[in-house]
Amino acid sequence: MKATIALLKAFGEPLALEEVEIPPLSAGQVLVRVEAAGVCGSDVHMWRGRDPRTPLPIILGHEGVGRVLEVRGARQDLYGQPVREGQRILWERGVTCGRCYACAVLHEPSLCPSRWAYGIHRAFSVPPHLNGCYATHIILEPTTPLIPLEEKGDPAVWVAASCSGATATHGFDLSPAHIGDTVAILGPGPLGAFSVALARAQGAAHVVMIGGTPERLALCQRLGATHLLNRQTTSPRERREMILGLTQGRGADLVVEASGSLSAAREALDLARYGGTVSWVGFGTPAGEMPLAPFEAVVRKNLRLQGVWVSDVRHTLQAVHLIHQHREAFAALVTHRFPLQKATEALRCVEAREAMKAVLIP
Amino acid sequence: MKATIALLKAFGEPLALEEVEIPPLSAGQVLVRVEAAGVCGSDVHMWRGRDPRTPLPIILGHEGVGRVLEVRGARQDLYGQPVREGQRILWERGVTCGRCYACAVLHEPSLCPSRWAYGIHRAFSVPPHLNGCYATHIILEPTTPLIPLEEKGDPAVWVAASCSGATATHGFDLSPAHIGDTVAILGPGPLGAFSVALARAQGAAHVVMIGGTPERLALCQRLGATHLLNRQTTSPRERREMILGLTQGRGADLVVEASGSLSAAREALDLARYGGTVSWVGFGTPAGEMPLAPFEAVVRKNLRLQGVWVSDVRHTLQAVHLIHQHREAFAALVTHRFPLQKATEALRCVEAREAMKAVLIP
Amino acid sequence: MKATIALLKAFGEPLALEEVEIPPLSAGQVLVRVEAAGVCGSDVHMWRGRDPRTPLPIILGHEGVGRVLEVRGARQDLYGQPVREGQRILWERGVTCGRCYACAVLHEPSLCPSRWAYGIHRAFSVPPHLNGCYATHIILEPTTPLIPLEEKGDPAVWVAASCSGATATHGFDLSPAHIGDTVAILGPGPLGAFSVALARAQGAAHVVMIGGTPERLALCQRLGATHLLNRQTTSPRERREMILGLTQGRGADLVVEASGSLSAAREALDLARYGGTVSWVGFGTPAGEMPLAPFEAVVRKNLRLQGVWVSDVRHTLQAVHLIHQHREAFAALVTHRFPLQKATEALRCVEAREAMKAVLIP
Amino acid sequence: MKATIALLKAFGEPLALEEVEIPPLSAGQVLVRVEAAGVCGSDVHMWRGRDPRTPLPIILGHEGVGRVLEVRGARQDLYGQPVREGQRILWERGVTCGRCYACAVLHEPSLCPSRWAYGIHRAFSVPPHLNGCYATHIILEPTTPLIPLEEKGDPAVWVAASCSGATATHGFDLSPAHIGDTVAILGPGPLGAFSVALARAQGAAHVVMIGGTPERLALCQRLGATHLLNRQTTSPRERREMILGLTQGRGADLVVEASGSLSAAREALDLARYGGTVSWVGFGTPAGEMPLAPFEAVVRKNLRLQGVWVSDVRHTLQAVHLIHQHREAFAALVTHRFPLQKATEALRCVEAREAMKAVLIP
Repeated sequence: MKATIALLKAFGEPLALEEVEIPPLSAGQVLVRVEAAGVCGSDVHMWRGRDPRTPLPIILGHEGVGRVLEVRGARQDLYGQPVREGQRILWERGVTCGRCYACAVLHEPSLCPSRWAYGIHRAFSVPPHLNGCYATHIILEPTTPLIPLEEKGDPAVWVAASCSGATATHGFDLSPAHIGDTVAILGPGPLGAFSVALARAQGAAHVVMIGGTPERLALCQRLGATHLLNRQTTSPRERREMILGLTQGRGADLVVEASGSLSAAREALDLARYGGTVSWVGFGTPAGEMPLAPFEAVVRKNLRLQGVWVSDVRHTLQAVHLIHQHREAFAALVTHRFPLQKATEALRCVEAREAMKAVLIP
Repeated sequence: MKATIALLKAFGEPLALEEVEIPPLSAGQVLVRVEAAGVCGSDVHMWRGRDPRTPLPIILGHEGVGRVLEVRGARQDLYGQPVREGQRILWERGVTCGRCYACAVLHEPSLCPSRWAYGIHRAFSVPPHLNGCYATHIILEPTTPLIPLEEKGDPAVWVAASCSGATATHGFDLSPAHIGDTVAILGPGPLGAFSVALARAQGAAHVVMIGGTPERLALCQRLGATHLLNRQTTSPRERREMILGLTQGRGADLVVEASGSLSAAREALDLARYGGTVSWVGFGTPAGEMPLAPFEAVVRKNLRLQGVWVSDVRHTLQAVHLIHQHREAFAALVTHRFPLQKATEALRCVEAREAMKAVLIP
Repeated sequence: MKATIALLKAFGEPLALEEVEIPPLSAGQVLVRVEAAGVCGSDVHMWRGRDPRTPLPIILGHEGVGRVLEVRGARQDLYGQPVREGQRILWERGVTCGRCYACAVLHEPSLCPSRWAYGIHRAFSVPPHLNGCYATHIILEPTTPLIPLEEKGDPAVWVAASCSGATATHGFDLSPAHIGDTVAILGPGPLGAFSVALARAQGAAHVVMIGGTPERLALCQRLGATHLLNRQTTSPRERREMILGLTQGRGADLVVEASGSLSAAREALDLARYGGTVSWVGFGTPAGEMPLAPFEAVVRKNLRLQGVWVSDVRHTLQAVHLIHQHREAFAALVTHRFPLQKATEALRCVEAREAMKAVLIP
Repeated sequence: MKATIALLKAFGEPLALEEVEIPPLSAGQVLVRVEAAGVCGSDVHMWRGRDPRTPLPIILGHEGVGRVLEVRGARQDLYGQPVREGQRILWERGVTCGRCYACAVLHEPSLCPSRWAYGIHRAFSVPPHLNGCYATHIILEPTTPLIPLEEKGDPAVWVAASCSGATATHGFDLSPAHIGDTVAILGPGPLGAFSVALARAQGAAHVVMIGGTPERLALCQRLGATHLLNRQTTSPRERREMILGLTQGRGADLVVEASGSLSAAREALDLARYGGTVSWVGFGTPAGEMPLAPFEAVVRKNLRLQGVWVSDVRHTLQAVHLIHQHREAFAALVTHRFPLQKATEALRCVEAREAMKAVLIP
């Protein structure tokens, strides 16, 4: 049997569409027919050669949903149920060892030093070769957690759980919202959209979304944002005053930076109340330095600042739960769909920030 | 009856020693004969006019231990026991309302907007006038929590619990150490010394103290520091490598900045492990800005950064417990004692960083 | 000005309707025109003489909503805003000292040894006499937290926040649900109804309500219960199997006992997963003993069992937030309304378990 | 090469000493020369046939320390360092999958449904046969976490970290003590002794140990118990009054049941303060039922009751840290040593409660 893959061979060049033989499975491996593959902002970075982790050639794609075609030996899903052929699944993008100090002592597998992710760390040359989601088929290793999905419906709605959904959830796992809280979120992309849903899922009374694109803001409203602030038409000071007004002068209990920009990181610190928490979730790549006054910005305010990097399957599963509860709104997140043949076009669309979420349908 | 007070009338000038009539007590007030009053670094700031909160004239001094001379009506100590005349007590320096959103909803009285502290916020002109510890007598308001102390022994050993001890404890309440952790602490002054004892009290296996004064480092060793690093004779890189060596390459689980300097704040971020916590406790006044790279310093490391400002009586009481357990080592913290007449000299001694802890014995 | 009160003079006898002069206010007191007063199950216990705390004669009623008629001096609400005459408020039923070991050190004011509640602890003879909500007017002490409500709409919808809402919230504060959890709740009365809303507000994916009254079960469904189990038509074993089926054989992550019966307390332990949590919230009065096997029921299952007693204003405020988010469903909780003249009838109606929630409109 | 094993072939009969060929290692397996093997109370249960898990024949022994004789392929220890031949190690007794819902979603590997322990679950017939510590050699599976120990000194001091130390630590991980707390512990066996050290390591000011054997009480004092209560010479009421006296009438903040008896489980509930925590750690086997009044014993007191079962390597490592800090006192825990030939005698000695801790030196 053959698979079609979109291969990144040279940075910045169009992906090469190739047909390759699917290798026989080893014990515990699972062959999946990819139904939908998310195109993540970090894929663009890799394509452009700005991510030093990127080995060449590589099949990109760390967000995937598909159907089990073949299982070699007995495999169980995350719930301990046997994996069946034909079943629709979502898999954890990051594979961790389960045994190291981070995994076994700290109970924080996202810190596992040997963590690797499909579509990011393994070159096409590394067996079993089908290591990324920009392809008709992917082979999952025995240690990859598998989450069963509903059999019916649009597969594309789930892909964002793998990466932006899981990462946003990791943020709210480390720095939760509480019932009645006011939560401010900067950046209405996928990370921000999930953060809105998470803030509401943890009981926030007010969720203020700050962003520049009216369509994205409107989607966040469907997910539960109670207040929308367009940064094109408001000043930082006006936004701060609006939040102080909402909170009798206190400021937001939790602020989530979900855009990866220095100005948002700075504004997040200003919007939080004394004793509040700021979560920096949006930075996926280096973004330079900002000036910070430790006394005024952090210490005098008794502020907690939490950096958030990647996630583990606990968070992916919670993101899947979230999508279950807001199926239609998350479906609206998927603004663009492309066949595998147009993977390069999909990357360009994401690079141009045209798509809220672009998905390949291989 | 008369009290002798050391009054700050003009910034930078010697304190004026005056005799004043002790006013009659109102219901619930407690008149205390001050036995020992700590001279805090922030007293120097106030004396020099660098703290905009300072009303003039004022009796400085927010750290005090003394004996109850008179109680107007029934008063209970923090444990609900009746307060007796002659009893030795330590009081909470910060008075909070107990009713506001911070006190009653957040359960974080240190954030109470109407919090005020003896010796800091109330001018001498405000009744009952005896509002600071640089005096033979102080009058405590009905809402001030009172902690009973042992009747015997040196009163000076306890004063540091009021401020640096309580603040350091607040830091470990917000960001605790765990059994087996490696904790690095920058700055071997009173805040750092308490932090050493706290790290050990919470089970840290390794406590690395970084500082520049051999005597202070040696005192921290008595309190439980397992490794001392003199920053005069080691480079930041050497210190980092030493801590990586202690932790099989991970870095410190918790790093406490206890010096209030930008370079230590920066170094603290570098010494923490991925997923670790940095606690900035040392900044008592503005110290300028530092450059910060959100991605590299915080996000990619999944770091938590906690700012710590003041404390509440929960922390003061825990600091008293700590001193109980390390009586002799904390006694050695008190390097200088002055009569009330030499209060100005005491301030100069602290300003010149000659004293680890200076105490007035009025 | 006069107030009409319904006075409990002899246990089990009809309440006596009397007109009394409203006393002049002391500093900080607030006179409130009661708009709605909840009739709680514990009021029935007090009326029947089964609660040894009950002093006679007494104005019952600890759940109230009303409008400020007069303020003596300046008072602030919980948010620090000045209290205005004519404003609609809800007040914290329990008054705590804010200074004791429980309040100030443990930060758990619900454990304050001097806590007392309106309508429960203070006899009518104790000034300012108007100490309960079964009356046209109540006088609130200076230390009572005041929560402002929306000016318009039905006042009765809010009263349950004072007691069952706050207590249920306390339970979820001590033992929270998490995103994706399965939560089982036993007892669809007011405590159980709030628990459903709380479980959903904290992100539970499945909320199973177990009860015997179809109308109550249906109301819980409106508040977010995903599965209803009628204990009249299912066996404990069937209920357990249903929950195991929902959770791939694990059991519920959190089980809330909200009925105060020994059989429910026992069943709660059986329904929880290994490592799960059981919250006993429903017991308001002694209910006898049950047999418990420590090894099988608790230790081998690594179970956490949390007893929940009363609450503090943090919880009352969160309950108000919950009602804001489910206004209509909580309005449906109020199944019976009575004028003050029919207060005895209201008690009988609650005693007969005819009402989900009965409210006096004085 | 041959190993000598002590084989349990028939319940209650003497263990059979046999010489068997050591099988060749598979990839990732580690052959260890056992230096010390703890004799646990649960070994006695297994020997007597009271533990239904026990397959026959079996090599008992789940607590072990030894030296690496051979490694097949590359293995890393828990810190990620290569395992060297000749190195002294302690290994995690429980092997978990690292991938299931308990391991990967809950981050609680001690709940892993496929968890199995050396010397408990695997018969001698299951390859690699050397599956227990009552032997000169044991073969460790590739997924077993390995903790490096100091090369020198008595190996027997470490064995208790594997089981009672790790379980006690799990208890304090789930229900920690805090600085200044009063902790009461019932049962001065190995679990209780570790609990004393843990309570102190987390900052408890008072640690009250209740037990019946003066020698054991004395050892607990060396580990940090501040008060010893002999239950032979005091009544439950006297013990309760003593603890109330220590705590100004509140009761203990945390009570640890470490004896596995119903009377201690009951007494633990009585000794805890309102809002306190009771940890039931001591029950290793069924012990019957006790009567419990939910209202009086749990709900009205706002009590938390935590059942504790087994542990994971996070706890084993923390127990190793504890022993490091109290080397001499924990050495005194080992009251009896036996050669492998006298393994049956060792079991009898533990059964007769003669030994605090008995260790085989194979």
